[in-house]
Amino acid sequence: MESLDKQKGVKSLRPSIKAFFKARSVAVFGASTNPRKSGYYLVQNLISHQFPGNIYPINPKGGTLDGLKIYKKLEKISKPIDLAIIFVPNRYIPDILKQCIEKGVKAAIIEAAGFSEVGEKGKDLKDQIVKITDDFRKIRVIGPNCTGITYLKSDGVGIFSSFVPMPKIKQGSTVIISQSGFINGGFLLDNVTRYKRMGLRAVCAIGNKMDVNENALLEFFMKDPEVETIGLYIESFQDVRRLIKLSNQAQNQFGKRVVMLRSGLSERGAQAISSHTGSLGEKSELIKAAIKQSHAIQADDFREFFRILRTLSSLNHWEISPNHTQNVAIITISGGAGAVISDWCEKYNLNIPKLSDETYAGLSKLFPDWMPPNRFGLIDIWPAVENAAGDYQSVVLETLKISLNDPKINGIFMTAFYSQKAWQMDWTKIKKILEKYRKPVFIWLFGEYRDVLKAERIFERMQLPLFRSEHEMVKIYHSIFKRNKG
Amino acid sequence: MESLDKQKGVKSLRPSIKAFFKARSVAVFGASTNPRKSGYYLVQNLISHQFPGNIYPINPKGGTLDGLKIYKKLEKISKPIDLAIIFVPNRYIPDILKQCIEKGVKAAIIEAAGFSEVGEKGKDLKDQIVKITDDFRKIRVIGPNCTGITYLKSDGVGIFSSFVPMPKIKQGSTVIISQSGFINGGFLLDNVTRYKRMGLRAVCAIGNKMDVNENALLEFFMKDPEVETIGLYIESFQDVRRLIKLSNQAQNQFGKRVVMLRSGLSERGAQAISSHTGSLGEKSELIKAAIKQSHAIQADDFREFFRILRTLSSLNHWEISPNHTQNVAIITISGGAGAVISDWCEKYNLNIPKLSDETYAGLSKLFPDWMPPNRFGLIDIWPAVENAAGDYQSVVLETLKISLNDPKINGIFMTAFYSQKAWQMDWTKIKKILEKYRKPVFIWLFGEYRDVLKAERIFERMQLPLFRSEHEMVKIYHSIFKRNKG
Repeated sequence: MESLDKQKGVKSLRPSIKAFFKARSVAVFGASTNPRKSGYYLVQNLISHQFPGNIYPINPKGGTLDGLKIYKKLEKISKPIDLAIIFVPNRYIPDILKQCIEKGVKAAIIEAAGFSEVGEKGKDLKDQIVKITDDFRKIRVIGPNCTGITYLKSDGVGIFSSFVPMPKIKQGSTVIISQSGFINGGFLLDNVTRYKRMGLRAVCAIGNKMDVNENALLEFFMKDPEVETIGLYIESFQDVRRLIKLSNQAQNQFGKRVVMLRSGLSERGAQAISSHTGSLGEKSELIKAAIKQSHAIQADDFREFFRILRTLSSLNHWEISPNHTQNVAIITISGGAGAVISDWCEKYNLNIPKLSDETYAGLSKLFPDWMPPNRFGLIDIWPAVENAAGDYQSVVLETLKISLNDPKINGIFMTAFYSQKAWQMDWTKIKKILEKYRKPVFIWLFGEYRDVLKAERIFERMQLPLFRSEHEMVKIYHSIFKRNKG
Repeated sequence: MESLDKQKGVKSLRPSIKAFFKARSVAVFGASTNPRKSGYYLVQNLISHQFPGNIYPINPKGGTLDGLKIYKKLEKISKPIDLAIIFVPNRYIPDILKQCIEKGVKAAIIEAAGFSEVGEKGKDLKDQIVKITDDFRKIRVIGPNCTGITYLKSDGVGIFSSFVPMPKIKQGSTVIISQSGFINGGFLLDNVTRYKRMGLRAVCAIGNKMDVNENALLEFFMKDPEVETIGLYIESFQDVRRLIKLSNQAQNQFGKRVVMLRSGLSERGAQAISSHTGSLGEKSELIKAAIKQSHAIQADDFREFFRILRTLSSLNHWEISPNHTQNVAIITISGGAGAVISDWCEKYNLNIPKLSDETYAGLSKLFPDWMPPNRFGLIDIWPAVENAAGDYQSVVLETLKISLNDPKINGIFMTAFYSQKAWQMDWTKIKKILEKYRKPVFIWLFGEYRDVLKAERIFERMQLPLFRSEHEMVKIYHSIFKRNKG
């Protein structure tokens, strides 16, 4: 793959970033035989994620690691190497890069920190690297100060350069591009154990992005037909005009959803990111305008960022069109929670419509004479449950069916009480109904805590997200569907 | 107890609302022997919460219920009755109230719905009741359309009028006054199983508040020395001037914390509460101004309402003064999460101060030469963990100690990664440090999901709240401490 280096006006052979993802052999600098050290898990994760090719651990001490020979030097390896994962102190990096270039390695992930984020000394190191690599024409670099990539191929094999012990991850359609290394480490572990069925295509932690940046990866993955959603955690934009263009193109031309969490908007936040990934902060008003123009779904923090990605993955799994508009109904077992959700709907410009005559007639059959349902889409099912002599489950299922059948209702917020002891409910029974209507149903569950945790696992198996609070439920619905309102 | 009825200009004998809480005998209208019916759990909950006196189930069918004789009529009971819990269809209410008055019952909880929330017919019923009770001079009423009260006395006995099966609840210093019945039902079950160590003094679900309202209860409980925090969920203010006065008095004169969740601010929300508890909505701008003047901590939704109550209960347990101001430090294992928290701190006017020389010197010893700590209170401990050859626990404990010792730091936000496999940590070890400094330390934990759930239980045992997201952590800190900023 070639690219035209416009700045210098010459055509130069710069390897494509594809080199990272099609690698069939990998050298791991800083591999360790000590299970207490990160260099151990680097190799372990490659093995457990079935890296599709040879793995060559490198450590001057030599020895073996889980049956693999540890090479003392790169030059001792006779076969070609596609990718180098470099997990050694920063002072060794220039020399290792020289070795890699000599060996014909096309891609390197530099995990060490201590570059531009630590001032002058680090900047010198950066200059050396730019020179050695001929401004990354000789080798492409992800990092430094990063955890590199997770990349899962359709055939179940993958590349994995994080040093956090990680269970096997489900392959899917979500891509995450991040300046936080934790996204390919602790956050990833959190998410793959919490949202077991949310599949991932790739996670790229790009750190200081000395070479490969968010725009290059966004462009690469927006063209990947396996991908449906791209999440970006950015501390500073590399080229904000290009990001805006790519983000809109990803959405409009390639039909992807783009989610963004941007930090460094505050004075201290900007100082923080400067010491984190060496990025320079920008005026927050400009950043805010740029984020708006990118038309990406914005997340408030990491927990929400992953919750939105998980919700989008669920909507994709259920083949729920992103074109639903802002007409929602609320099905609630708590009148109070219904009122709180109504307030949030208004704040987020979601409309609770008048029910169609058919819907109203259908619901009325479930309700007692002394307490008919509302004429609009706030359905407090408590009287219906009383009327059904406590048969909670059938009231929930019937109400859901009747409401989803109303063409004026595009989506539903449901609050549900769950306690196996007295409010039994087989949650798997909602599956058939949801399959029929393919409209978003966002649920907030409360009740006996252990039962709620059990239900969470049932929902996860059905690939349906549960939401943590009434506000979160409405906020995320709004974030996802707002582009289509009106 | 007597009160002067100023409106009529005559001194009338109106029983005090103390009658509900000092009751030593209770009659339960609508008691049922069928464990599938709510009328069964009404009696069960009184038994299991050790109601301090006689329980008299009443049902025209007669029989026995767990060894208790079921009376067919109130008049068949020879002993005096202090409190009546009435769980029968609304049409029977007037007659039952007449019987209660005749028998000298001073307090009644009416759980049936179908009053002013259902229009004209319900309003007629209300008028009948007002007449029968001589405008509640002959008997005090909580409800209708409510779940009544939970009241836990210091000696471990209690009154409990909800029909949701409930485990034994810890007695403590929190009071909740609510127009949502679920607060004394499903929400309560959720909270007492989720936050097992959060003690409660009382939960009062007042429904349509035909007689007893939020102001009467707020006044009653603000004078209760056992109480430290009062949470209010209100759908419409009964007398907003009085609420503002009482709320400020509770805080300034009696030293209580007041938390408020107010719904019905939107058009649909107002319609919803009208059908929920028959309350009339008010102009939302006026409501907002009133909430502000009450100086209560505002909650966004029920989940946050309980999270704030739980946090306040924890601060009380740890004897952490509410006078901490807005200087906070961030201890983070993820630079990205640190940057996101910094941004939120700025939005909520929290200041991240420059570290004292002593603090900086102390931290510097933990950090490697190639990556010293920041000069201000954003402490990314990652390099220190690398420096300590992965001894995560000692870095967390040392950093916490050094930061809490800095007099310029009033509170701490901590993000922590937890996975038993590779990032071990004995969380109970932070107890000693927190005991020494008594400053708020708010923690957001992520990692292997099962381990995080385990840690949640450990934190609950230590009576420390974990927060669900970075944003939530900063928002709740701000809500609690903002009165003292500057």
